[in-house]
Amino acid sequence: MSFTVTILGSGAALPTAQRQPTSQYISCNDRHLLIDCGEGTQTQLRKAGIKLQKINHIFISHLHGDHYFGLVGLLSSMHLLGRDAGINVYGPKELEQIIRLQLEIGGAKIGFPLNFHPTFNDTKRKLFEDKMIEVWSFPLKHKIPTTGFLVQEKPKERSILGEEFKNAQLSLTAIPKFRKGENFIDENGVEFDYNDFTFPPKPSFSYAFCSDTAYHTALCEYINNVTVLYHEATFLEKDKERAKATFHSTALQAAEIALKSNVKKLLLGHLSARYESDQAHQIEAAALFPLARVVKDLETIIIRF
Amino acid sequence: MSFTVTILGSGAALPTAQRQPTSQYISCNDRHLLIDCGEGTQTQLRKAGIKLQKINHIFISHLHGDHYFGLVGLLSSMHLLGRDAGINVYGPKELEQIIRLQLEIGGAKIGFPLNFHPTFNDTKRKLFEDKMIEVWSFPLKHKIPTTGFLVQEKPKERSILGEEFKNAQLSLTAIPKFRKGENFIDENGVEFDYNDFTFPPKPSFSYAFCSDTAYHTALCEYINNVTVLYHEATFLEKDKERAKATFHSTALQAAEIALKSNVKKLLLGHLSARYESDQAHQIEAAALFPLARVVKDLETIIIRF
Repeated sequence: MSFTVTILGSGAALPTAQRQPTSQYISCNDRHLLIDCGEGTQTQLRKAGIKLQKINHIFISHLHGDHYFGLVGLLSSMHLLGRDAGINVYGPKELEQIIRLQLEIGGAKIGFPLNFHPTFNDTKRKLFEDKMIEVWSFPLKHKIPTTGFLVQEKPKERSILGEEFKNAQLSLTAIPKFRKGENFIDENGVEFDYNDFTFPPKPSFSYAFCSDTAYHTALCEYINNVTVLYHEATFLEKDKERAKATFHSTALQAAEIALKSNVKKLLLGHLSARYESDQAHQIEAAALFPLARVVKDLETIIIRF
Repeated sequence: MSFTVTILGSGAALPTAQRQPTSQYISCNDRHLLIDCGEGTQTQLRKAGIKLQKINHIFISHLHGDHYFGLVGLLSSMHLLGRDAGINVYGPKELEQIIRLQLEIGGAKIGFPLNFHPTFNDTKRKLFEDKMIEVWSFPLKHKIPTTGFLVQEKPKERSILGEEFKNAQLSLTAIPKFRKGENFIDENGVEFDYNDFTFPPKPSFSYAFCSDTAYHTALCEYINNVTVLYHEATFLEKDKERAKATFHSTALQAAEIALKSNVKKLLLGHLSARYESDQAHQIEAAALFPLARVVKDLETIIIRF
């Protein structure tokens, strides 16, 4: 089991030779997720050696082309490669119309169920959960309705101290309570402290994706304490007026959000094509938040570290 | 002045590491045209060192995604780069709806006029002409309405033999007639043969694009005598049943079309991802039509040679 994110594209609206439009592949406890799907994502997946058919959940943050123009092409390729397993697509409701129109006009019937789930940018909402992970959306502040996404491992249960439990000769019905961190009261009314019979669970890791967004401290509550935060840093602080006008952030602002949200690590992406190098972004963010790093296309970052 | 085609993508529906989806850039007498615009075309243009803003006519053959999914992204990038010159897009009428829907939902107002010209696949039709070139569409035989495109230099005028003209002391009004290859009759009713006062013009070159299409000899009349023909060769002859079922062609069928159309050179593309090498396509086509060649992404072919 692992929890990693592979950066497929870390560019902004204008792709460059170094940075393709936004897309990220997340592998979390054998779940395979895609966040955003800019033009060329299927080619980037191929370059990264990721099998398209593993992906079964695709989350689209908003309907600017650099975040979804690769989606219908990816779905078409999945079909051509013989997929029959259903796929779940989450995004603003108009996305469904775009997908179905393009498939219909092209005369393409994809041979697998396409389950569309509209997203809403009013508050934090759970989009998906199973026994291992949860995925949430939460509002960002951008020109058009946009959500961030939070992928987190579910809290794990505490582990039983076998010897102590055996010696106390308690009922087996105590075990589920202890694992959840609750005390157990036996038939005589005696209370047993779970701390005496368990040790803490392994920590749960989490990853938050915030792109595209203006500097927006309201989002800190949604991403508080996450392990790794990816926050857009389209601009540098010297261009912060431009950032404000276009509802984007600077590298320093991304670092401020990371600091206020008490995250462990910060990844910076969505860099404007106007900057020839990412050195200044790196320096600007790390001055405030040392564990900040500008990502590169096709690199994989380990979240459970 | 030059007449060249740069292959931006020569793959079929499934892009590979070697072949991107269909797109070609044509430079003809200072006109800059794009034929088809599969996903990733703007990145391929950048790799080929072609400035996006030079392009002012885009021709889309049909609405399978591998021929147009890069179009709205390209238009968006042209806008972001500050374009104000209008652009002409030619394609099946539903394409306009797709473009406008995607721009509208993304809240994007592009800052230049987008002139949409619907194409029809009933017969050969002139889409564009100016004093130097003409572009025509003509019907192909595919699963959905599809056209090929013919780009040709206009016939050049004959050149005047200065000495002979001067010696005959003819009226200057004879010149336009002679240049067009018409005889001149003076005020006394004497007829002067244009052959005596002119020499033939330089030949005009032409390029035809035929993708996607089943083997379809009816198209030979539309492309008769072209200098360079690009014809799809999705399959090999051993898979011709598959070609027929999917309305595609084999390399041998492409060569047959080239032969029947009396073209000078044949370029093969749109190769299926199922073939690991293009050697067999090359051999199969060249056995019948020696001047056949499988193209590669990012190569430029000189049409006026």
